[in-house]
Amino acid sequence: MSHDLLLTNIRPMGGEPTDMLIRSGRIAGIGRGLSAPGIAIEDGGGALAIPGLVEAHTHLDKSLLGMGWRPHQAGPLLIDKIETERRLKGEWGIDPARQSARQVVQSLALGSTHILSHIDVDDAVGLAGVEGVLATRQAYAEVMDIQLVAFPQSGIMIRPGVAAMLADAMRLGCDIVGGLDPCGIDRDPKAHLDVVFGLAEQFGKPVDIHLHELGRLGAFSMELILERTRALGMQGQVTISHAVCLGDPDAALVAPLLDGIAALDIAIMSTGSPSAPVPPLAKLVGMGIRFCSGSDGIRDTWGPYGSGDMLERAKILGLRNNLRYDADVEKALAVCSFGGAAVMRLADYGLAPGCNADLVLVEGETLAEAVVTHRPRRLVVKRGRVVARAGTALVQAD
Amino acid sequence: MSHDLLLTNIRPMGGEPTDMLIRSGRIAGIGRGLSAPGIAIEDGGGALAIPGLVEAHTHLDKSLLGMGWRPHQAGPLLIDKIETERRLKGEWGIDPARQSARQVVQSLALGSTHILSHIDVDDAVGLAGVEGVLATRQAYAEVMDIQLVAFPQSGIMIRPGVAAMLADAMRLGCDIVGGLDPCGIDRDPKAHLDVVFGLAEQFGKPVDIHLHELGRLGAFSMELILERTRALGMQGQVTISHAVCLGDPDAALVAPLLDGIAALDIAIMSTGSPSAPVPPLAKLVGMGIRFCSGSDGIRDTWGPYGSGDMLERAKILGLRNNLRYDADVEKALAVCSFGGAAVMRLADYGLAPGCNADLVLVEGETLAEAVVTHRPRRLVVKRGRVVARAGTALVQAD
Repeated sequence: MSHDLLLTNIRPMGGEPTDMLIRSGRIAGIGRGLSAPGIAIEDGGGALAIPGLVEAHTHLDKSLLGMGWRPHQAGPLLIDKIETERRLKGEWGIDPARQSARQVVQSLALGSTHILSHIDVDDAVGLAGVEGVLATRQAYAEVMDIQLVAFPQSGIMIRPGVAAMLADAMRLGCDIVGGLDPCGIDRDPKAHLDVVFGLAEQFGKPVDIHLHELGRLGAFSMELILERTRALGMQGQVTISHAVCLGDPDAALVAPLLDGIAALDIAIMSTGSPSAPVPPLAKLVGMGIRFCSGSDGIRDTWGPYGSGDMLERAKILGLRNNLRYDADVEKALAVCSFGGAAVMRLADYGLAPGCNADLVLVEGETLAEAVVTHRPRRLVVKRGRVVARAGTALVQAD
Repeated sequence: MSHDLLLTNIRPMGGEPTDMLIRSGRIAGIGRGLSAPGIAIEDGGGALAIPGLVEAHTHLDKSLLGMGWRPHQAGPLLIDKIETERRLKGEWGIDPARQSARQVVQSLALGSTHILSHIDVDDAVGLAGVEGVLATRQAYAEVMDIQLVAFPQSGIMIRPGVAAMLADAMRLGCDIVGGLDPCGIDRDPKAHLDVVFGLAEQFGKPVDIHLHELGRLGAFSMELILERTRALGMQGQVTISHAVCLGDPDAALVAPLLDGIAALDIAIMSTGSPSAPVPPLAKLVGMGIRFCSGSDGIRDTWGPYGSGDMLERAKILGLRNNLRYDADVEKALAVCSFGGAAVMRLADYGLAPGCNADLVLVEGETLAEAVVTHRPRRLVVKRGRVVARAGTALVQAD
């Protein structure tokens, strides 16, 4: 297929109705009354057009989608959830290839065209998760771009062999080196971060570290990350996910961290969790810090919530950050689109001529209304190809 | 119409599939293979059946539903929102009868069968809000039960004449006397509460007070409410809405308040706001405190969010209170159904034989899944009459 397409009567970013011509998977032109004899036409019905949404933090290898309702079992601590998951992955047969395919299809139906996913690498599953999701990445390459983080969910120092497995995961095709709560889980922050940043240096790849640690402990771990980013010249190549300590009420704790993050071009990922401190979205965006969001786990052994809907995620970010003005709600939407693209370093992202034709049509009078109501997606287009229509993906999973 | 109905293949509260016979608007029997020659039959398709949802805190008089997207204008403080709303009600022509009808219809489509609404009574609109919503209550009496709070949104002591207007509102047909931040807005807590509780005594009606005040200030106002509840023998007749101070991290502040609330059978309403402290749901429910929830304002001059979906509200309560176990998610659902019924003192509420046949059919394997996914409602039944189908109300508004 050539992936040429003419979209008529669409409103890019909520502007006036216009048409968009797509040639060979890229936006060739935008304007009223475009015509292109012989190519497929889709009537946009006056819907908003926004760039393909970016799911910039999830766990494709372990969703329970399609496996029936499984009541939550884990205890309240992070380590409880880790141990419970290690047990249930085997007991329940959570197949990484099958489950990641299901989540990819669901995300596609909801308008995500890019996914950044952490994949467990540990001494229980080894590289099975990475291999499974790599198979999914290959199978769905035409419809979804996926970047993978080799993620030491169970720790590195406390799990013999994991450091070497992470190196193997990078060789297999992971794009980013992951890390997790250097104090909280490994109880040895120096050693944990030396492994993570060592692998990043070895493979010449970026880093993305889960940091749930609170208050002064989280600030300490974050300082260690900033120090290594500076020492290794890794400006612009480090993401801190969750970054819970940036939601601390103590401004004296938060301000120097934000200054360091901005100076080192470190990116921040926040889900806008309603039950934990969160990095203040408007403040960080205002400082020019690259800021993205994601669904995190979707109906997995960590919790029952989540759908993969990044428009609803923008709403959750808006509610959590008390964003009420249209301009602020649009910032939350930008986090779930352009922000994710900036963190994934996507080339040719957006709705300008020349960009890849990855886009979503959705009903709404304004961008803010589209966030608030997050209606079923009218059309999802990936490189000029219609991949979902009326809320349903046109590709399937098992 | 007789409002007889046979519902087949439904799963009450997520149990085994069964049938339900409704006679004269009440549940006459539940069991497999029921038949009733000559009466209407609805195939439940294996959907869950839950009692009609209870919207126990909203503002029917001032939603902007159906008026096009209106960007938020108000400043950050409570008083900014009050002043902005007073201005825009006139400028935008926010008609209480029309707007309340629209919200009632939307709530009905989403499965709410009972609404408790605060209605502004102030020196700008006088009794126009009450009169408009009373007209809606009458027009939709067959499909929605509505209780009204005479609500001094702009204050009492700082707005001459409002105390007398509140009395007039009670005479017109309001069911509950409202109040608002006795320190924060009126700057005279004793006088404010003396008016509110004085009206309650005069008319023999309950009280429902908005309390957004934080920390020690909120605790002080709450103590004053508790003292008056005890002194006037109003146990079981007082609701505190929002009760933000109960989300304070200082257990020494919160614990004695909760003990007083439990002892005096005071009810608490929480929306589960993601951006403010909230009363801890599981703790209060565990203490036997009557606990309800609501949408608060739906797309009004206070903010752009809200849909009236009380299943989604249960999800928001779950996310905000970090509820992950099925039993806990079910508590959030109970807050949005039985909890609201307990606060509104509804007789014959529930799915037991003899109860009013107010119920919702919704897809879901379990109650928890219905909360997490909050799919369009398959069927909404009010006193035996089908009032919404496939997410669409069968009654209209202007």
